[in-house]
Amino acid sequence: MALRTGAKLLMSCGFLLRRPGMRTLRAAHWRNAASVTTSHQTPRTSDLSSFAFRSHTCGELRQAHVGQEVTLCGWLQYHRHDMFLVLRDFHGLIQVVLPADEDGSHLKEMMNAVSLESVLLVEGTVIPRPPGQENSKMATGDIEVQAKEVHVLNTCRKLPFEIKDSVKKSESLRMQYRYLDIRSAQLQYNLRLRSRMVMKMREYLCNQHGFVDVETPTLFKRTPGGAKEFLVPTQEPGKFYSLPQSPQQFKQLLMVGGLDRYFQVARCYRDEGSRPDRQPEFTQVDIEMSFVDQLGIQRLVEGLLRYSWPEEKGTLPDPFPTMTYAEAMSSYGVDKPDTRFQMKIMDVTAQMRTLSLGFVQEALRKSHGCVKAIRVPEGAIYLKGRALDSILQLIKNKYNQDIMAVIVRSDGSWKSPLGKNLSEELQKALAGTTGAKAEDLLLLAAGPHDTACTALGKLRLELASKLEECGVPLCDPNTFHFLWVVDFPLFLPKEENPEELESAHHPFTAPHPDDMELLYTDPTKVRSQHYDLVLNGNEVGGGSIRIHNSELQRRVLQDVLKEDVNLLSHLLEALESGAPPHGGIALGLDRLISIIVRAKSIRDVIAFPKSFRGYDLMSNAPDAVSAEDLQSYHIQVTPK
Amino acid sequence: MALRTGAKLLMSCGFLLRRPGMRTLRAAHWRNAASVTTSHQTPRTSDLSSFAFRSHTCGELRQAHVGQEVTLCGWLQYHRHDMFLVLRDFHGLIQVVLPADEDGSHLKEMMNAVSLESVLLVEGTVIPRPPGQENSKMATGDIEVQAKEVHVLNTCRKLPFEIKDSVKKSESLRMQYRYLDIRSAQLQYNLRLRSRMVMKMREYLCNQHGFVDVETPTLFKRTPGGAKEFLVPTQEPGKFYSLPQSPQQFKQLLMVGGLDRYFQVARCYRDEGSRPDRQPEFTQVDIEMSFVDQLGIQRLVEGLLRYSWPEEKGTLPDPFPTMTYAEAMSSYGVDKPDTRFQMKIMDVTAQMRTLSLGFVQEALRKSHGCVKAIRVPEGAIYLKGRALDSILQLIKNKYNQDIMAVIVRSDGSWKSPLGKNLSEELQKALAGTTGAKAEDLLLLAAGPHDTACTALGKLRLELASKLEECGVPLCDPNTFHFLWVVDFPLFLPKEENPEELESAHHPFTAPHPDDMELLYTDPTKVRSQHYDLVLNGNEVGGGSIRIHNSELQRRVLQDVLKEDVNLLSHLLEALESGAPPHGGIALGLDRLISIIVRAKSIRDVIAFPKSFRGYDLMSNAPDAVSAEDLQSYHIQVTPK
Repeated sequence: MALRTGAKLLMSCGFLLRRPGMRTLRAAHWRNAASVTTSHQTPRTSDLSSFAFRSHTCGELRQAHVGQEVTLCGWLQYHRHDMFLVLRDFHGLIQVVLPADEDGSHLKEMMNAVSLESVLLVEGTVIPRPPGQENSKMATGDIEVQAKEVHVLNTCRKLPFEIKDSVKKSESLRMQYRYLDIRSAQLQYNLRLRSRMVMKMREYLCNQHGFVDVETPTLFKRTPGGAKEFLVPTQEPGKFYSLPQSPQQFKQLLMVGGLDRYFQVARCYRDEGSRPDRQPEFTQVDIEMSFVDQLGIQRLVEGLLRYSWPEEKGTLPDPFPTMTYAEAMSSYGVDKPDTRFQMKIMDVTAQMRTLSLGFVQEALRKSHGCVKAIRVPEGAIYLKGRALDSILQLIKNKYNQDIMAVIVRSDGSWKSPLGKNLSEELQKALAGTTGAKAEDLLLLAAGPHDTACTALGKLRLELASKLEECGVPLCDPNTFHFLWVVDFPLFLPKEENPEELESAHHPFTAPHPDDMELLYTDPTKVRSQHYDLVLNGNEVGGGSIRIHNSELQRRVLQDVLKEDVNLLSHLLEALESGAPPHGGIALGLDRLISIIVRAKSIRDVIAFPKSFRGYDLMSNAPDAVSAEDLQSYHIQVTPK
Repeated sequence: MALRTGAKLLMSCGFLLRRPGMRTLRAAHWRNAASVTTSHQTPRTSDLSSFAFRSHTCGELRQAHVGQEVTLCGWLQYHRHDMFLVLRDFHGLIQVVLPADEDGSHLKEMMNAVSLESVLLVEGTVIPRPPGQENSKMATGDIEVQAKEVHVLNTCRKLPFEIKDSVKKSESLRMQYRYLDIRSAQLQYNLRLRSRMVMKMREYLCNQHGFVDVETPTLFKRTPGGAKEFLVPTQEPGKFYSLPQSPQQFKQLLMVGGLDRYFQVARCYRDEGSRPDRQPEFTQVDIEMSFVDQLGIQRLVEGLLRYSWPEEKGTLPDPFPTMTYAEAMSSYGVDKPDTRFQMKIMDVTAQMRTLSLGFVQEALRKSHGCVKAIRVPEGAIYLKGRALDSILQLIKNKYNQDIMAVIVRSDGSWKSPLGKNLSEELQKALAGTTGAKAEDLLLLAAGPHDTACTALGKLRLELASKLEECGVPLCDPNTFHFLWVVDFPLFLPKEENPEELESAHHPFTAPHPDDMELLYTDPTKVRSQHYDLVLNGNEVGGGSIRIHNSELQRRVLQDVLKEDVNLLSHLLEALESGAPPHGGIALGLDRLISIIVRAKSIRDVIAFPKSFRGYDLMSNAPDAVSAEDLQSYHIQVTPK
């Protein structure tokens, strides 16, 4: 029956090129089924051809297979000299030789009529390539397959672009024909690496550490003021679900429920309109556990990443380095430092204090006034003139912070807007602190600590990117610098009203145990038990130890944040019902994978991404819905 | 730092009961971290206490642990005789003995003030129970823990119900306090088994057979006429996403994209309003592969289920039995036969033809007219009088099919509405065909084949359920009967207009290769390459070989189904772009797990289910949204 169905299927669906004496299609898919499925051991390598028409993938044949009869399925990549086909699947390329005899000439003729990217099934024998004709650039280049039969399983129209990574195509064309783009080696690699890495994460969490994979709802109650949440109208008039931004409440409730090690590769939603490199739906590896402290979660996540890290991407340190928020801000001017390169922010207040110039003295008189500097090695060579000016102007526009550029010429003399004010003594003092030497560029900012650091932090990244553009290698592209940033402030002044406080992360974050008293005296000084995981200057994860005491939670919500606690009454009630101490983290999977595969955008690690305006360019979603169809949802579109 | 944080944390969050000379809390979470995380081998058992405050779970201590110092975390289940605590976690119960000395009396006094379900951390030593005091009903009943310290990590208010499986509570109360319900041993078992089984499925698909886990979008384009789809308004006026009912289009596009073995544990959505035992969001194990035929998918799924099947639930056959749709309908009157018990539908047309009674002759004159029967062994004992009548009336109401009940008395004589018409000869003929003997009940239906079978099929299930109620064991509760149903019709007449055809499953289903010609001559006779997987009479999966030829797909959509092909132009275009032959399946995970754990409802295998009206009773979702908040979505609620 299998044989019959298989052959019928082939015949029913396009061309079938038969040579005289063609054998019935072999049912390659029975080969290993029994032996594979009864073993409960994870094999070293997967069986990529089980249950399928093929016996092997196009990429796996080698010298050792010579003499074997094989069945291959794939796409026609090339057609060479009327004699060779190159067949492609996700695994690689293989050269197929058409028979030279009379039957073969019929086959050749028919193959000439078949377009590239048609789907073929080839039956034949693996033979060595004639001496001298091996192709060392091809993994299968030592051999080729002498075809006995070629079946055309499906033909292909003229495509909008060739399936070759080398062929340039616009991103909108790639998105419109995503199913063609997915055939590219790069996207195959990205999506397969993502799958593989998530699988390893699951093994680590589920099999090694007893975590339970729990699916939480995505149709949930709207968060009051949750402007970034998608709404979902229901069949009940005026009632809406909301698509949550994270399973935060559910994972805490699971802890209260005694399901004390939870994880989920969770779909999350954020309605942000047009934002570059964000997606309206995204995925996070969501983890929560009970009876754990901050360091416990950090070690768990480090183990998780080491275990799931792709072999070809090197190894990760044990443990990961940790930096406080305060240090990150003062040395890197940002809470997610890219520690792959130096150019750290240095304090030169003491040295510059001697300078009687007005703007320096004025800056120092301000609260937390200081002078900060970064040194760009060889910066004088690569960063000058208009290019440098435009970067400094960008910083000025963004942070209202003047930056002073000081150049150390190749002869060791210094050049700066300060003229003679930059005395030899001051030059010496600055060189002593910053290590400035010939060809270096020093950039100084005078002002309040946070502003100066933030501006220099942004400048540091801009300069690094400029230097990389100029071909100065700052970072080894194969380097992955993980970093924990800890001891964040628990509260921040609200932007619109700095007298009021809001949570730096979310209101369920526990205060640092050393700062518990400050909660009553000076909440702005309370550090939190929040931690961010940073990779190469990108935030790839964040989490915290949560408040498990209902009184403390109520105090934070009511007294500090002035929120209406009734809206979270079910959560407070849960905390009163025997909630264990707990904490967790969420890793941004799309971002993490995109950094690992060095993709330019998270769209390159998502099978069917939305455009930056939130459109699916293939199906043209979102789309209009007729007023009639909207009736059953009890809504209508508001007239403009 | 870890120690400090740990101890501070305990102190910051509730009571801390200290005995003189208390040691600092041991950081149990460092124990195995290094050795576990560096191993890439999946261990036999998970480390359930890694990274946590505890050294062991409450359920794992045994005689072999006697003498060990342990740290346990859990919930206070009982407090006995002023001297014993029973601590509970997901893993089990453990008895803790408070010290009998003077320090202990202080501890006892404080423990008396602590409510049940408070969260405790106990440090102590494992000791054997005094001879004769072992509790064989408790897995840890041979030992107890002599406490040195007890820390109260959190207290518990008076709860709406006790955390004991034996305590009855209404389902709405359970849903409102789902975080308490999850503490029950039954829900812990259900959710953990679900996680474990899904993990095994992933191992099988991903590690053993090279399937790639790909996440597909849930914000997609609305299907024309997709009345059961949820809508999602966007920030663009009048534009809506839709939450798809399955990733069907995406998985086919992945095949066109050469990602030739796809799977996903996919969240799906269906807006059905109030339906018992359905959920607005549900989960399916979604699989698709290329270069495969129907039998290939069936074998793959069988291997998947055998591999992931919980050990404690026995073993599954290899292969699973298969039945055609036609046979299922004629023998069981339903397309998802429960084959755990007999009582199959038998044909007695030949025997009854001799009967000259009007209603029989009339039935036989109809198209496909026949007489069908089922035999209920010992039915005459358990099914009689009003109980039987009401079941027969139910069938009459539902199918407009009269059922005739024939009783074989204990003395072997027959009783029926036919009176003398039921001659001895006919009795003999019927007994010969059906095997009817003393105490049996025979139920006969005369009419068109499909109606008679469907009615008897429903009757069969009703009678079985009645017999089970009467304590007649028809099915071993530990029996799992998987069955493939194949050779479904490809098209069905539309209910509202039987002249027109609609797809029996979906329009992408491939015709049976043997019936390709019928597509042009008599589409109603075309069988499909669709297959359903049935477990104990429930459909737990369905799939098909898909159409990969664009011409065939166009013909089905345009000529047979009379649909507007422009709406699916991107799919037709994809099929023209070198689409491989492909097929797949989707398994309903919620239903599958609920049958395996014998849950009454799928709500018992979902962590946070919605009520049958689609409500989250804990948070009260869905909820009203203010007109002001609706503005940013450009919608308003239609006035009544």
